[in-house]
Amino acid sequence: MKIKAIHHAAKPMDSQIRNAFINFSEMSTSTVAVVSDQTRDGKPLVGYGFCSNGRYAQRGIIEDRLIPRLMNADPAGLLNENEDNVDPHRCWEIMMKNEKPGGHGERSVAVGTLDMALWDLAAKIADVPLYRYLADRFTDGPPDPRVYVYAAGGYYYPGKGIDTLRDEIRGYLDAGYESVKMKIGGAGLKDDLHRIEAVIKETGSGNRVAVDANGRFDLMTALEYNRALESLDLKWYEEAGDPLDFLLQSVLSESSTLPMATGENLFSMTDTRNLLRYAGLNPRRDFLQFDPVLSYGVVEYLRILELLPGFGWSPDRCIPHGGHQMALHIAAAFGLYGNESYPGVFQPYGGFHDTAEIEDGYVTLPDAPGIGFELKNRLYTIFKSLH
Amino acid sequence: MKIKAIHHAAKPMDSQIRNAFINFSEMSTSTVAVVSDQTRDGKPLVGYGFCSNGRYAQRGIIEDRLIPRLMNADPAGLLNENEDNVDPHRCWEIMMKNEKPGGHGERSVAVGTLDMALWDLAAKIADVPLYRYLADRFTDGPPDPRVYVYAAGGYYYPGKGIDTLRDEIRGYLDAGYESVKMKIGGAGLKDDLHRIEAVIKETGSGNRVAVDANGRFDLMTALEYNRALESLDLKWYEEAGDPLDFLLQSVLSESSTLPMATGENLFSMTDTRNLLRYAGLNPRRDFLQFDPVLSYGVVEYLRILELLPGFGWSPDRCIPHGGHQMALHIAAAFGLYGNESYPGVFQPYGGFHDTAEIEDGYVTLPDAPGIGFELKNRLYTIFKSLH
Repeated sequence: MKIKAIHHAAKPMDSQIRNAFINFSEMSTSTVAVVSDQTRDGKPLVGYGFCSNGRYAQRGIIEDRLIPRLMNADPAGLLNENEDNVDPHRCWEIMMKNEKPGGHGERSVAVGTLDMALWDLAAKIADVPLYRYLADRFTDGPPDPRVYVYAAGGYYYPGKGIDTLRDEIRGYLDAGYESVKMKIGGAGLKDDLHRIEAVIKETGSGNRVAVDANGRFDLMTALEYNRALESLDLKWYEEAGDPLDFLLQSVLSESSTLPMATGENLFSMTDTRNLLRYAGLNPRRDFLQFDPVLSYGVVEYLRILELLPGFGWSPDRCIPHGGHQMALHIAAAFGLYGNESYPGVFQPYGGFHDTAEIEDGYVTLPDAPGIGFELKNRLYTIFKSLH
Repeated sequence: MKIKAIHHAAKPMDSQIRNAFINFSEMSTSTVAVVSDQTRDGKPLVGYGFCSNGRYAQRGIIEDRLIPRLMNADPAGLLNENEDNVDPHRCWEIMMKNEKPGGHGERSVAVGTLDMALWDLAAKIADVPLYRYLADRFTDGPPDPRVYVYAAGGYYYPGKGIDTLRDEIRGYLDAGYESVKMKIGGAGLKDDLHRIEAVIKETGSGNRVAVDANGRFDLMTALEYNRALESLDLKWYEEAGDPLDFLLQSVLSESSTLPMATGENLFSMTDTRNLLRYAGLNPRRDFLQFDPVLSYGVVEYLRILELLPGFGWSPDRCIPHGGHQMALHIAAAFGLYGNESYPGVFQPYGGFHDTAEIEDGYVTLPDAPGIGFELKNRLYTIFKSLH
């Protein structure tokens, strides 16, 4: 077999939301198609990828560095030993050739986008869903296609009052979600407390509500919020301070009885290792939220999973950022705690297959080969237009 | 005044070298021109920038995110209060709008490239050399335009033997350099020791020779090299392990009597803070090598300088990576230890003004307004072609 072509296009991403740090109205994503010479039922097998959300399209790195390196390499060097499928690990090494260590951002997103398409293609050639392909290659046990998901939302509604927020949360619960995440830090503590209490009224209990400060707080504010939130028995307190301020996280981790969650803005194994070394997180209580697509893809995520036991962590404390199909497969394959879900935003990239239903807080992966973008019609239409 | 246009072009960078980690033959750089409506002697005042070396051109981020944000902003928002000059700090905030925290790489290079052009323009409008402009705005004392520089080279010459290396080093000394840096880690320890001893024979003493492993070693190898190198009394032992492996650096720092040097692959204040917190570096002995252009520019470098005293460090322990005119101005303005120099490589971007002479290991900045690219003819020709 052979990879015939790799196509890339940057696209706008529809998301009229904002968190405590940025607004997403100009968010974009890269879309890629890796076209093989293999066919099934007369149609070429093609792998697709996009770059999760929050970090913009990666036109320069993908078009100027990664695609040329892959297409200029010995074609057999992109394949497994039998030369009957792509080998994403070998492709990863080729993409990262002549790249210096450190500086993990943007490049990690670009590599993760192509990594997604390569795994999609590999699983399609093997004619199995990606979660099964990954579990067969890298784990002992059978994968569970049923994955816990929570609804990430709880946005600010300037001028609209708290009823709009309650309506939003009620919608998630009606749709089958058991737990939700809401934004904090975009208003003062007093306003945020009112908002959180209103959300708890909807969910019925604090441990079905996570709160997310998106890295906005300094240490004093993080501790002040912690003191006010502790009695509410929340599901977790996410990204209180700057994602690289491990000392802040460490002081907060030790000061708090609430579960901590962080990691969506760390993009490599080496950054993860620093988090586990220095941030004082508790592997029995806390959550790790690395987004595999923003972080150099499955190849690097496997390195992260390999790191965990040495620090007392298990994959079942991981719950990736992003709310996309790729992380859902990874969660199913490796027995992660679950996956984020963003009902209705980052469309048509975010979310799962069109027929996905949330039952008791779980979603079940379909049997389609690869990632199953073909079962997400608006997204598949965009991908098809690439080639 | 007003910024009329910002132009960008990605360019190849001529550098047929390799270190222990990458080869540079496909290295590229971004070039930018910030065109103002101000004139002097009938010519428009234009600020120029490029992205140091080692991290490639940043076409996507500069063209898709940074330039549109600057050009779509309120034009007065890019200026100082008197509206008679650009304000690089305000421009920085505009460039970083809707950018999430963390993930400092590539984006830091793109911002640093435009930051260079904005400071070049600001100093040109003020009609003073950049080092003087920076010193007047941000320091108490008068700047010293005479800056210590060392010659970075000491490459591998496969098949050519050690005489070629000695010739290279002899050339640097003949050109006026007092000290040199050479690569290690691209061969075995035994070969590297022969190479180092040959270089010391040229320089006359170990403390005129720094060695650079470019982040290649694991802990055991780093310690093994350290044991072999300690008796040679070298100037410094640079980037033994992965730039983000602060634990490795900490063990090595404590185990060694040699001065340590690192930081060229850390690109933000928050990453720097982690280095100072966790890497066990000694502020009386060791060196910090952050490249201001790769790290979000002067605006972020000022934050780094502000951080230093709280950890016991002084600017005079800083010696930036990159070997370019921008870092030379920064070194002069803030009283840094010195600056790197790459005689003859990364042309025409690397190196200083065409008439620069190295005397007793020092180079003196000229009096031209701004960074003085106009005194570096081949580079100025490229910049002029942008607008």
